Amino acid sequence: MSTTRPLDAAIVGIGQTDFSKDSGRSELQLAAEASLAALADAGLGVSDIDGMVTFSVDPTEDVELMRVLGVPSLGYSVRLPHGGGGSGATVYHAAAAVATGAARHVLVYRALNARSGRRFGQPRDPGAAPSVGSGWSFAQWYAPYGALTPAATLSMHAMAFMSSHALSNEDFAEYVVGIRDFAATNPSAWFHNRPITFEEHQASRWIIEPVLRLLDCCQETDGGVAFVVSTVERARDLRQRPAVVLGAAQGVGAADVAGRVYAQAGVGPTDLDAAMVYDAFSVEVFSSLEDLALCPRGEVKDFVASGAIRRGGIVPVNTNGGLIGEGYLHGMNLLTEAVRQVRGTAANQVAGARHVLMSSGRGACILGGET
Amino acid sequence: MSTTRPLDAAIVGIGQTDFSKDSGRSELQLAAEASLAALADAGLGVSDIDGMVTFSVDPTEDVELMRVLGVPSLGYSVRLPHGGGGSGATVYHAAAAVATGAARHVLVYRALNARSGRRFGQPRDPGAAPSVGSGWSFAQWYAPYGALTPAATLSMHAMAFMSSHALSNEDFAEYVVGIRDFAATNPSAWFHNRPITFEEHQASRWIIEPVLRLLDCCQETDGGVAFVVSTVERARDLRQRPAVVLGAAQGVGAADVAGRVYAQAGVGPTDLDAAMVYDAFSVEVFSSLEDLALCPRGEVKDFVASGAIRRGGIVPVNTNGGLIGEGYLHGMNLLTEAVRQVRGTAANQVAGARHVLMSSGRGACILGGET
Repeated sequence: MSTTRPLDAAIVGIGQTDFSKDSGRSELQLAAEASLAALADAGLGVSDIDGMVTFSVDPTEDVELMRVLGVPSLGYSVRLPHGGGGSGATVYHAAAAVATGAARHVLVYRALNARSGRRFGQPRDPGAAPSVGSGWSFAQWYAPYGALTPAATLSMHAMAFMSSHALSNEDFAEYVVGIRDFAATNPSAWFHNRPITFEEHQASRWIIEPVLRLLDCCQETDGGVAFVVSTVERARDLRQRPAVVLGAAQGVGAADVAGRVYAQAGVGPTDLDAAMVYDAFSVEVFSSLEDLALCPRGEVKDFVASGAIRRGGIVPVNTNGGLIGEGYLHGMNLLTEAVRQVRGTAANQVAGARHVLMSSGRGACILGGET
Repeated sequence: MSTTRPLDAAIVGIGQTDFSKDSGRSELQLAAEASLAALADAGLGVSDIDGMVTFSVDPTEDVELMRVLGVPSLGYSVRLPHGGGGSGATVYHAAAAVATGAARHVLVYRALNARSGRRFGQPRDPGAAPSVGSGWSFAQWYAPYGALTPAATLSMHAMAFMSSHALSNEDFAEYVVGIRDFAATNPSAWFHNRPITFEEHQASRWIIEPVLRLLDCCQETDGGVAFVVSTVERARDLRQRPAVVLGAAQGVGAADVAGRVYAQAGVGPTDLDAAMVYDAFSVEVFSSLEDLALCPRGEVKDFVASGAIRRGGIVPVNTNGGLIGEGYLHGMNLLTEAVRQVRGTAANQVAGARHVLMSSGRGACILGGET
């Protein structure tokens, strides 16, 4: 065990429900099912849980989840801002809970009926107050210009990035074909067994021309994901091979966060065996790859085109199919995929994966096997 | 500096706006004003802030407050559940941020227009979804019985406590007269210069008979409160005498939280020189005093009647006038009062105060001067 590791923590169990367009059950139930699956995976019981972390926008109250699961007490409970962008920060906060002794085993959960309930991708009522903690207060600056969906507001920024990087939607097709290839061989993915061709991508209708076509966008998904964080020492007694938290941080901006996580972990971009990068929309991955220093600034177009992030590439990205291919679980299913890669149990396993990054812009972590 | 102190942190600056029934400005502005006041008090600049903590229900986004203040980056940002009950947990989370190195100076803020905006005490629409993270998901169990306000739901529990402890509303009058005495000599209090008599309390109209009269209830208040948490070492270079975090914890239930905070601090109930105890309603203090072990179980009626928690008592409680007398800033103004007592600058200063507890049920801390 490294003495320089700043956070003594590991992800010891992961769980999820089915991912669908109509779960047929409440978000509370989805959260409970995912939580029980994560506990069973870890070999822990409900009464071992004494901390919880979720998103500001998650509808399931900690005390309600305590009640339905039977968790006896909590020494730690937080909600993280910035919607799915905050998913990468959950690991830092759970690790801080165990590092300071406030909790022994922290349950991180997120469950949403984002398709059968309130649809995330639909236009927002410009007169409605944004959800507290969603990070959508900025919508007031976009609404007067008619930009009322995540796709629309994101594309205003993406246009500038595309211009400076000579990117077109055809470049995004390269990325999407690659992750649909991963999804096709991942039984948990919505698009299991449904790979696409470049031509199929280019034939899909525009959502925001000239940035995003239909196949560049994640689908609104119903489902739940949970995982459990414990100390490394406790992890050794549990059922699974621990996914050790080599570095974990929260911040505002992928480059800032990644820099701190690399420094903590003593692991640089070239040491990564795989990376999970938030992709509600394809274009997000292109700017993130540069922010994460996975390729030099200005070179992302050629980097992606080279196949570097595809199956068999030098650093496969979103090996579960990403949020676009597996399901939009608000970033949480990128974290569980990072755990599977470190365990060696991913559907699209990268042989010998030792260092796996997950980044969602407002948070990131590097997981690894215990050395 | 004690080597057994689990959290190396201190509150180094406090700030607040005026407390009113019509602030005439946005909650974002109130948050900014309180934040700048806290920074000025500490002798810190906006660019020193790199962490933020607020409530799940606070309408001010961290990124909006960054923008209006000019905070360059954040390494830590959380929102705490359980409404005002979570206020006592803010200190633990800010301390965890500096303890793990995620931030150097954490700004804790809360601003609300709870009177001129959405009134907290008014009946909730039983068909409306509760605010996420408010802890009000339980309201679904009360609404069918017509209990739609905080006063009504609380009183259902209070009836049982009053029965088992032989308490009547006349006992609560003793408490309220005492804190209105404190408020009368606190220039920041809404009820400055307005003490009440026992008879005046008993003449006020029932809100929930036989539990709460008008003068047992806090008033919905507009205003903002902020404070800054840093490491003890950094605190020594700043403007104010540090209010050292001797213990701080979060939990579900005052007795559980208090037990952990006393253990951390190595300070017991009899060592306390003053205590700040969440009092949206008078009756809450009675159960809390027993949960906090400030008096033996079953004896709170006689304990309060003895004058123990009044001016000059053995452990004065809510020396600013409490949430009922000073203003309902969702518990945050009890934390700033605890800081003032430790500094020796409170309007109703307890001579030589060395150990001051703040408890809000879902969180607590003990502050002290550096030894």
